[in-house]
Amino acid sequence: MAPPPRSGDAIFANVDRVNAELFTLTYGAIVRQLLTDLEEVDEVNKQLDQMGYNIGIRLIDEFLAKSNISTCVDFKETAEVIAKVGFKMFLGVTASVSNWDPEGTTCSIILEDNPLVDFVELPDTCQGLYYCNILSGVVRGALEMVSMKTEITWVRDMLRGDDAFELRLKLLKQVPEEYPYKDDE
Amino acid sequence: MAPPPRSGDAIFANVDRVNAELFTLTYGAIVRQLLTDLEEVDEVNKQLDQMGYNIGIRLIDEFLAKSNISTCVDFKETAEVIAKVGFKMFLGVTASVSNWDPEGTTCSIILEDNPLVDFVELPDTCQGLYYCNILSGVVRGALEMVSMKTEITWVRDMLRGDDAFELRLKLLKQVPEEYPYKDDE
Repeated sequence: MAPPPRSGDAIFANVDRVNAELFTLTYGAIVRQLLTDLEEVDEVNKQLDQMGYNIGIRLIDEFLAKSNISTCVDFKETAEVIAKVGFKMFLGVTASVSNWDPEGTTCSIILEDNPLVDFVELPDTCQGLYYCNILSGVVRGALEMVSMKTEITWVRDMLRGDDAFELRLKLLKQVPEEYPYKDDE
Repeated sequence: MAPPPRSGDAIFANVDRVNAELFTLTYGAIVRQLLTDLEEVDEVNKQLDQMGYNIGIRLIDEFLAKSNISTCVDFKETAEVIAKVGFKMFLGVTASVSNWDPEGTTCSIILEDNPLVDFVELPDTCQGLYYCNILSGVVRGALEMVSMKTEITWVRDMLRGDDAFELRLKLLKQVPEEYPYKDDE
C-alpha cells in the first residue's frame, strides 16, 4: 500500500534547505540583471515566467517523490495541494485557495507571506514589472507535467500596494494521462 | 556583556530557509540566462562574481547580527569564521580552511559539498566557466565590508573534475576601521 500523503510542514522539515535571505538576494540579482539586459519590463516579465516554467517542470518530480501524492482527482484538489503542500515545501510559506468560479476551473492562490520580496521596493521605472513572475511560471510548468494546461496571471501584488499576492489560475485543458508505452512493445 | 558567538549550526537552525533544490534550479536559471545574453564565458564569470559581490555586501549585515561575532582579530580568524559559520549559515554546508602561506595572508577555503552544483554538468562549450563564481563574489563583497580587500580565485572545481571546490583567498589590503563620526559632532 502506498504511504499516506505528507504535510507540507513535515516535508519542509526534512529537505535540504538554504538561507532564505541568500535566496531572496540571489533572486533579486536575476531580476536586476534581466532589467539591465532586456530593458523592456514586459520582456523581463516573460523571461521570469519562462525561467519559472523550466524550474517547475523539474521541481514537480521532487514534489511528487517527497509528498507521496500520486494523483489528484481534479483541479480543485490540485490547487489545494499546490497551496498547502507545494508552497510550504519549497518556499516555507503557506498559501490559501479561494474565489472559485462555478465551473471549478478558475481559482486564486493567495499568498500573504512571500520570501521573494523581502527588502524589495520597485522604483518608478519598473511599475509594470511582475517581480514574482517566476512563481507563476513554476506553477504553470509543474501543472503542465501533470497534464493540466493553465493560464496564470497576477491579480494582486504587494509590491504594487495590494494587501496580498493573488495568483489567478485558469484551467485551459486537462490532457488525459497517456500510457507511457505501446501495448505491443 | 555581549552574548557569545553562535555556531553555524545553531544559526542555520533558526533562520528562515527555502528548499535547496529550488535555490539550485534558480541559480542554474541565472547562469543559463547569462550564457545566452553575454555569450562569452569570461563575461559570464565576471558577471556572476559581480552579482555575488553585491549580495555579499548585504549578507554581511545578517551574518554579523545573527552570529554575534563582533570583530575578528586577524585574517586567519576571519577565514575560519567564513568557512565554519558563514558557509553553514547560508548554504547549510561546512567548509574547511587550509594551505596557509607563511605570512598568514593567503589560504584556501575547501568545500566538499556544494548545493549550487546538484544536477549540474557543464557542456563542452562551457569549459572555461566558473559556475560557482557567485560564491567568490559573495566572500569578496562580505570581506570588503569588514575592511579586508581580497583577491579570490578558484583553484579546484568539481565541475572540472577535481575532488573538491577550493577557493584561494589572498588578502591584498586591510583598511583600519574608521570611527564612524567625528569627535566634535
